[in-house]
Amino acid sequence: MLATTKVYGCIAHPIDHVKAPTLFTSIFNKKKIDAIMIPIHVYPENLENVVNSLKLVRNFHGMTVTIPHKQSISKLCKKLDDDALFTGAVNWIKFDEHRNLIGNNFDGKGFINGFLGQNYILKDKRVCIFGAGGAAVAIAYALTDTNIKSLKIINRNVNKAFHLKEKLTIKHKSLSVDVSNVDNYILDDCDVIINATSLGLRDGDQIPFDVDKTTKNSIIADIIMQPKDTKLLKTAKNLGRSIHYGKYMIESQTDLVGQFLEIW
Amino acid sequence: MLATTKVYGCIAHPIDHVKAPTLFTSIFNKKKIDAIMIPIHVYPENLENVVNSLKLVRNFHGMTVTIPHKQSISKLCKKLDDDALFTGAVNWIKFDEHRNLIGNNFDGKGFINGFLGQNYILKDKRVCIFGAGGAAVAIAYALTDTNIKSLKIINRNVNKAFHLKEKLTIKHKSLSVDVSNVDNYILDDCDVIINATSLGLRDGDQIPFDVDKTTKNSIIADIIMQPKDTKLLKTAKNLGRSIHYGKYMIESQTDLVGQFLEIW
Repeated sequence: MLATTKVYGCIAHPIDHVKAPTLFTSIFNKKKIDAIMIPIHVYPENLENVVNSLKLVRNFHGMTVTIPHKQSISKLCKKLDDDALFTGAVNWIKFDEHRNLIGNNFDGKGFINGFLGQNYILKDKRVCIFGAGGAAVAIAYALTDTNIKSLKIINRNVNKAFHLKEKLTIKHKSLSVDVSNVDNYILDDCDVIINATSLGLRDGDQIPFDVDKTTKNSIIADIIMQPKDTKLLKTAKNLGRSIHYGKYMIESQTDLVGQFLEIW
Repeated sequence: MLATTKVYGCIAHPIDHVKAPTLFTSIFNKKKIDAIMIPIHVYPENLENVVNSLKLVRNFHGMTVTIPHKQSISKLCKKLDDDALFTGAVNWIKFDEHRNLIGNNFDGKGFINGFLGQNYILKDKRVCIFGAGGAAVAIAYALTDTNIKSLKIINRNVNKAFHLKEKLTIKHKSLSVDVSNVDNYILDDCDVIINATSLGLRDGDQIPFDVDKTTKNSIIADIIMQPKDTKLLKTAKNLGRSIHYGKYMIESQTDLVGQFLEIW
């Protein structure tokens, strides 16, 4: 630690589970960048006050934003990227040279980059997403830039799925988007099936969808990082499907973050 | 860095010269305490705003305070220790269990502990301080608890020295305190002579006092840390006087700070 060390943060409540301070401080070290990331534990009602003050700390340059601040911080930003605008959520902020707050959301692009980075292909593929919440919206939005053939959104609350479809087709008129209910869906017309719900995070969670319904050549992707081998991915592996781990969505965000922060 | 790492700060403007983040982060490491100290660069006009927000960051526990915030932060504290009250300056703050701001000043006690730690004696000694500013006030106040025989304050602005004498004798009625002008002083009646001015910090600075005027057995102490060997200490050494380095004042504060923060 030096007087000149640049300080970044990871703002959350609760704080005990966050991994970003460890991950990014270690990346800074490896890249020989004089910077650290500290955990910043702030209750929801204090977010605005703290963010306005961090603006006044001249050696504080940005932070990753997680639960429960992702939506509320977007309202404090002077500028949002398209992903943050579409999702209404921000997972990284920085202060620009005028100390204005800039908010981005790298979840969607992170998923895409991670998926392509494992040498899977999205072009002309029929993609299915389970979920219509934060992560699903981010991934669906990012998918509209990837020349997929079609998108199917499957969600318990089917209205939420239709709402997402509507928003997506405003942006990308020619994209074919289907919506299904979780009680009645087919998957044998899909090449890539993504779990973008939180099912799999907790021990007793049910499997988010029936892998038996997928074709032998389909790829099963999860966004759950912990545990690495979710019930879904274990089942898919046993049935001989190609699988894609949740960790890649976060890991491949680091390149995007470095560009955003202009540090690598 | 972990999610649970306790965060401490060093608040200053300018920030580039501060040594505390390096020193304390290294002490935390050596003592296997899961904590770090970050530099916090804040302009004077933003101090109150930032301090009020740090109060809301639940994993932020305290900070060392330096130029130009030492006086102004004392007005934001809910509770001050005697040294901070006397000097009107704070060099460490912490948030207590109710997130109230507690301010202490360890400069005076730090000097005393450092001096005694080098096996010098203060009891029954005739002590002389050059200066009547922040550091001099802190050291003079702490000296009143050490059973010295007498104190002499020598300062360019003699009114400031008389004001300090007045404040000291209110606290310690029986203490013998003399005041002299820098143009006309004797030192052969002193056992310990302390430079508590900033003379010696910059290259072209004149020597703060004439070492030839001191007795052979006197001890010459400096509070300047950088350079370590000031013109004063070099001259004193050449004349065969015992010398005491500035660094001990800061180094011996770490024990006091650990108790204050309740971490060692």
